[in-house]
Amino acid sequence: MIEPPPPSPATPEDQVAALAASVRGIDPAFAVASADLHLRLTKPRGSLGLLERIGAQLSTLARQVPPPIPEPAAVVVFAADHGVVAEGVTPWPQVVTAQMVTTACSGGAAISVLARGVGASLLVVDVGVVTALAPHPNLVDRRVRHGTGNIRIEPAMTPAEAAAAIRIGYDTAVRLATEGVGLLVGGEMGIGNTTAAAALIASTTGRPTAEVTGRGTGIDDVMLAHKITVIDDALERAGNRLAPLDRLVELGGLEIAALAGWYLGAAARSVPVIVDGVIALAAACVAVDLAPAARETMIAGHRSTEPGAAAALEWLGLEPVLDLGMRLGEGSGAALAVPIVRAAAAIMNEMATFDDAGIDGPS
Amino acid sequence: MIEPPPPSPATPEDQVAALAASVRGIDPAFAVASADLHLRLTKPRGSLGLLERIGAQLSTLARQVPPPIPEPAAVVVFAADHGVVAEGVTPWPQVVTAQMVTTACSGGAAISVLARGVGASLLVVDVGVVTALAPHPNLVDRRVRHGTGNIRIEPAMTPAEAAAAIRIGYDTAVRLATEGVGLLVGGEMGIGNTTAAAALIASTTGRPTAEVTGRGTGIDDVMLAHKITVIDDALERAGNRLAPLDRLVELGGLEIAALAGWYLGAAARSVPVIVDGVIALAAACVAVDLAPAARETMIAGHRSTEPGAAAALEWLGLEPVLDLGMRLGEGSGAALAVPIVRAAAAIMNEMATFDDAGIDGPS
Repeated sequence: MIEPPPPSPATPEDQVAALAASVRGIDPAFAVASADLHLRLTKPRGSLGLLERIGAQLSTLARQVPPPIPEPAAVVVFAADHGVVAEGVTPWPQVVTAQMVTTACSGGAAISVLARGVGASLLVVDVGVVTALAPHPNLVDRRVRHGTGNIRIEPAMTPAEAAAAIRIGYDTAVRLATEGVGLLVGGEMGIGNTTAAAALIASTTGRPTAEVTGRGTGIDDVMLAHKITVIDDALERAGNRLAPLDRLVELGGLEIAALAGWYLGAAARSVPVIVDGVIALAAACVAVDLAPAARETMIAGHRSTEPGAAAALEWLGLEPVLDLGMRLGEGSGAALAVPIVRAAAAIMNEMATFDDAGIDGPS
Repeated sequence: MIEPPPPSPATPEDQVAALAASVRGIDPAFAVASADLHLRLTKPRGSLGLLERIGAQLSTLARQVPPPIPEPAAVVVFAADHGVVAEGVTPWPQVVTAQMVTTACSGGAAISVLARGVGASLLVVDVGVVTALAPHPNLVDRRVRHGTGNIRIEPAMTPAEAAAAIRIGYDTAVRLATEGVGLLVGGEMGIGNTTAAAALIASTTGRPTAEVTGRGTGIDDVMLAHKITVIDDALERAGNRLAPLDRLVELGGLEIAALAGWYLGAAARSVPVIVDGVIALAAACVAVDLAPAARETMIAGHRSTEPGAAAALEWLGLEPVLDLGMRLGEGSGAALAVPIVRAAAAIMNEMATFDDAGIDGPS
């Protein structure tokens, strides 16, 4: 069940650096052309707000004005378990990760409903669940190891394992892009993963642990205080000034590493990718730390109420499309943003210009 | 072309009061049952935020848990002209209202693109455009009069005209509900209508004119200062403590009166209606002033950047679904909220419960 990384003579660091190097910069000329088109559409200047900014981003990525409608959309949920649950950071037993994967595959998870609602496909990729999972057409078994180590006392994974998980995410995004997918949404499942995400965000942003640690599935004050202690211990053990790959090795999760690779793959193919949830944002920080231009491909879908999400969004410099007070994970907030991203492109393709419509200008 | 109000022995006040009386209160029992279902779905408690509140509202309106998916959605844009443009409150010539109606009917307006994108039908109802309009399958001619009076110096319309416009909006909503439409979106077109909307919102909320008056299509500081003076003059002429119908008569617009009736009609039939834009919000304030229970049917779609929108939302006690920095009108922000309202119902119908999925609870 454990799949080794693709054979390569290079070190894990070199493997990841090669993926990061595949991300190229953008050409701002298409954002200028996008703004010019928006001025000619039959509406007051700037009146579509964020839709105009998304339209410029889609134009830049597609190198085309108007940009193609970003469809079809594909949602991929990466799932893995976390050794740190041994520290009592969540009331949920670890088996729930596998149960939620099964629920997602059979169409009953929140992300299943929301993906279906916006016409997106859904795939679950197991990169490190502990519990055995029955085969399912919507489930891809790419288990790198059976859950991470307990980050309070040991590294989450080896550098080779982190590189392998990154590669799985990268290849998944590249494969979907090759198949013609126009919009990517990454999600995650993993009991305990808000602990790993908070540790990564604290390490990336330098913010105090208490500022970036939230209640996850809804823990009480006592458990929250304990969670912060556990994360502080992990950060102290891991040390300061970690390189992005080392950060995943020491504090990460396998689904987080896969998501980091997913963002690099999306960026390498210039496919817009919607980011949502504190775990996905922790992964996005790693991706941008590895390849700063990866940020140009990202659209923040939703402002999670988890405090680490706000810190990561600020660090990334991203303004979310939605703010619905959600904190469910799975990519749920990102899926809800899909119609709005599509609308930003549709406006540019389908609205009449003042010339088309023969509309009199202002006096 | 001018259509008289339906024959009735009653005064305009009595006619409008009868429509308002058709709005009934809600039964909070269905909100309780909705919250109970949400607790049993496979997600952390409360983790869907606003989607759970919308789900409770849809359940209450449908008197059913889970509520039916609110579809199909229908967008109706009410269009009319404003005599106050004679005062120079906008740089756009009045003919642009008719040109925008034509553009909307032929599919090239922002609301055309956005309605199509979310699978909603679109109809434009002319309740008072000045310029002649060619017949079109998507255009309904219910012109009450050719534009309003100049509210700086005279009433916008007579009480009979206001009652007629209210009745047109009411009947439009009721007819769509009878045809099985599950979600209503009201929009508007009318050069000069942010002036009327600001006057109505100032009159309703008691806020100073300068606080609730915005740049509309994007006017400069000089024109904005003049617009505020014009509105202050209109408010002084109209006097204080106006009844809701008199407020429309003195300060309103024909499309605003029609929208107020539209909200009453939606409420009378308990069909959820998405409200967006400063003009629609001014109309929603009139509707709620006439029938406070009408608010229970309203979902605020988007927080317009027009300052009057924030004041009206606060007065109505509504929290918008979206905040995309838009200020286009036409119901554009409301149309973008349609997929999110649908998702709130889909979650309740399609997500697995913990029992269904055999998921272990927290320890």
